[in-house]
Amino acid sequence: MTVTHPKGFRASGVAAGLKASGNPDVALVVNDGPDYTAAGVFTGNRVKAAPVLWSQQVLKGGIVRAVILNSGGANACTGSQGFRDTHATAEHTATVLRGGANRMMIGAGDVAVCSTGLIGELLPMDKLLPGVNAAAKALDADGGAKAAEAIMTTDTVAKNAVAQRDGWSVGGIAKGAGMLAPALATMLVVITTDASADNEVLDAALRAATRVTFDRIDADGCMSTNDTVLLLASGASNRQPSLEELTAAVTEVCHDLAQQLIADAEGATKHIAIEVQGAASEADAVQVGRTVAGNNLVKTAFFGNDPNWGRILAAIGTTSAAFEPDRIDVAINGVWICKGGAAAEDRSKVDLSGRDVSVTINLREGEMSATIWTTDLSHAYVHENSAYSS
Amino acid sequence: MTVTHPKGFRASGVAAGLKASGNPDVALVVNDGPDYTAAGVFTGNRVKAAPVLWSQQVLKGGIVRAVILNSGGANACTGSQGFRDTHATAEHTATVLRGGANRMMIGAGDVAVCSTGLIGELLPMDKLLPGVNAAAKALDADGGAKAAEAIMTTDTVAKNAVAQRDGWSVGGIAKGAGMLAPALATMLVVITTDASADNEVLDAALRAATRVTFDRIDADGCMSTNDTVLLLASGASNRQPSLEELTAAVTEVCHDLAQQLIADAEGATKHIAIEVQGAASEADAVQVGRTVAGNNLVKTAFFGNDPNWGRILAAIGTTSAAFEPDRIDVAINGVWICKGGAAAEDRSKVDLSGRDVSVTINLREGEMSATIWTTDLSHAYVHENSAYSS
Repeated sequence: MTVTHPKGFRASGVAAGLKASGNPDVALVVNDGPDYTAAGVFTGNRVKAAPVLWSQQVLKGGIVRAVILNSGGANACTGSQGFRDTHATAEHTATVLRGGANRMMIGAGDVAVCSTGLIGELLPMDKLLPGVNAAAKALDADGGAKAAEAIMTTDTVAKNAVAQRDGWSVGGIAKGAGMLAPALATMLVVITTDASADNEVLDAALRAATRVTFDRIDADGCMSTNDTVLLLASGASNRQPSLEELTAAVTEVCHDLAQQLIADAEGATKHIAIEVQGAASEADAVQVGRTVAGNNLVKTAFFGNDPNWGRILAAIGTTSAAFEPDRIDVAINGVWICKGGAAAEDRSKVDLSGRDVSVTINLREGEMSATIWTTDLSHAYVHENSAYSS
Repeated sequence: MTVTHPKGFRASGVAAGLKASGNPDVALVVNDGPDYTAAGVFTGNRVKAAPVLWSQQVLKGGIVRAVILNSGGANACTGSQGFRDTHATAEHTATVLRGGANRMMIGAGDVAVCSTGLIGELLPMDKLLPGVNAAAKALDADGGAKAAEAIMTTDTVAKNAVAQRDGWSVGGIAKGAGMLAPALATMLVVITTDASADNEVLDAALRAATRVTFDRIDADGCMSTNDTVLLLASGASNRQPSLEELTAAVTEVCHDLAQQLIADAEGATKHIAIEVQGAASEADAVQVGRTVAGNNLVKTAFFGNDPNWGRILAAIGTTSAAFEPDRIDVAINGVWICKGGAAAEDRSKVDLSGRDVSVTINLREGEMSATIWTTDLSHAYVHENSAYSS
């Protein structure tokens, strides 16, 4: 149920001492082919970590044979030394994989690098490089779950997912806690498939999938310095699904992982789905959903089990979406407490005692809709993010 | 030291029972002339409360003889009945001021209305209208401070300010706690002057003043459904300052009130000034300052006394301002812990034990600068905003 479910992949996760806890902190995923096509989606943040800059270059080459990942340090805002360290990590990974039992045909330019953890500090290369050796030795056709464990930071559970199709499959691992954006917690995702697909098809499938999954959790899924989503194809199933079939399977895995990320968000007590209906455009629906999801007063109200539709309307009012204030309807957990921009059903009918909350906003302007997933803003969120220097 | 310091104004504050606490909740400010010129700046929120829609119409008439304000209810998202209630409040205020000891020449169209409190509920008119009667009776040339008290909601102290000039002055009162935007706490401000100035001059002075004061506290000072800043001129000093002189005095009062608002923000433990230097344009400087100020990870780091410059860089990276990541310098309380986008002086040198924090960001792109004021994100903020249904 992870990146090693599709044929043609091995993975591992080992403890290299980057994390003070001694927990696993270096992960490796390798593609044993016969294909080595790949696609990547990276953070929209203009302050990009060294591994993001490196991996963007690797993707331009069109081949990814290995992904080396570490937690315990983001290697972001580390200047030219940080980039040299990322380069050295890729070189070392390629060297190690060319030798030993692996005997892979691989150069540094085929190795993507992902890092997560503290910003602004150099990685302890004297620990990381031996960790790469250990990870290469530990590579296993069942090693995906161990890789998922090794990329955890403040995550409380490892995230794995699979979409099984007839004769081929898609698998994935992810990490990323924090309240995601606007909290800038890093999201790292590696997705694998044993389908055969060229780079253009993989790129189209991955972009279509992330647009409606990772990009719709909280305000913006792509705003850490290190966010990276990679899709690797081995072709080992000897199947070539259509773009639509591949997109559907990749989207299924991305949706599953995105929901796991939201469910594990730092200190959250609510898992909130904000569905915007009746929008004049999908862009309007997404903008309204993100704005409501990102509003601290809305988030704190849900933490307090308060069905505060007035704060939702006030948040909608800050957007540029097409709407008239006196036409908006809002339901919380199915109770239409606001109709035509004013109070409707009694707020006491809204039961907010559970963890899952659904907010439905009808702008009554058109036919388009979108759903954004988010969390509440809790004491535990403040505690975790004021105590953890990341 | 308040709205009744300039000559030609009277004010009052009374308890009408709108607040469950029994504290004063209706305020009245009247202009006894000889001039009745005025200007207003209102919320940019597209969901506007009934009193905002009403007062915008009043301002178009060019004359404001009275401002009636209430706490204990925002009269926002209240539909057509809410607007009828605001209209009735203005009518009643005008009627009462035409009679009794006041004998003012005043119509409903000369009465601005401001409300603050819960969104989505109708005002108890059976309490508010008798409160107007009492406020009219209590009008006093020294009543400004009582008016400031009566508009408080979660404010812990009343806010008053004065700028004294040779022969004329500017006075003001304000309310507005919450973390301001993005928390959408309502800001109400009434500013008075005994200078003589026509509506165009007042409008220019008020817009210039709010642009660099109220608009620069937190991410955006104009996003509640009810935000209103009014400037009334009586001409009673018989002085006619230049636009520059008037702008300077109004800005002084607005700056003073804005700092009082930040100092009293709900649950804040830090008062943070973010100065962006070296920007290519003032708009870039403001955008960077607002984005950093509005970032929850930056805010929680300051609550935890953590000089986390990496989170500041990551926030800057989400803007469209002109910058190169490897040229940015950041100082916290005077210590340049980030130079050229990477770690510089030791973070342990930064003393964050005090309440006041200064962040200096140098983009090294140009000569423009701007300062945004904000607060940290604390447990108390979450508590107050999850418990208070507003």
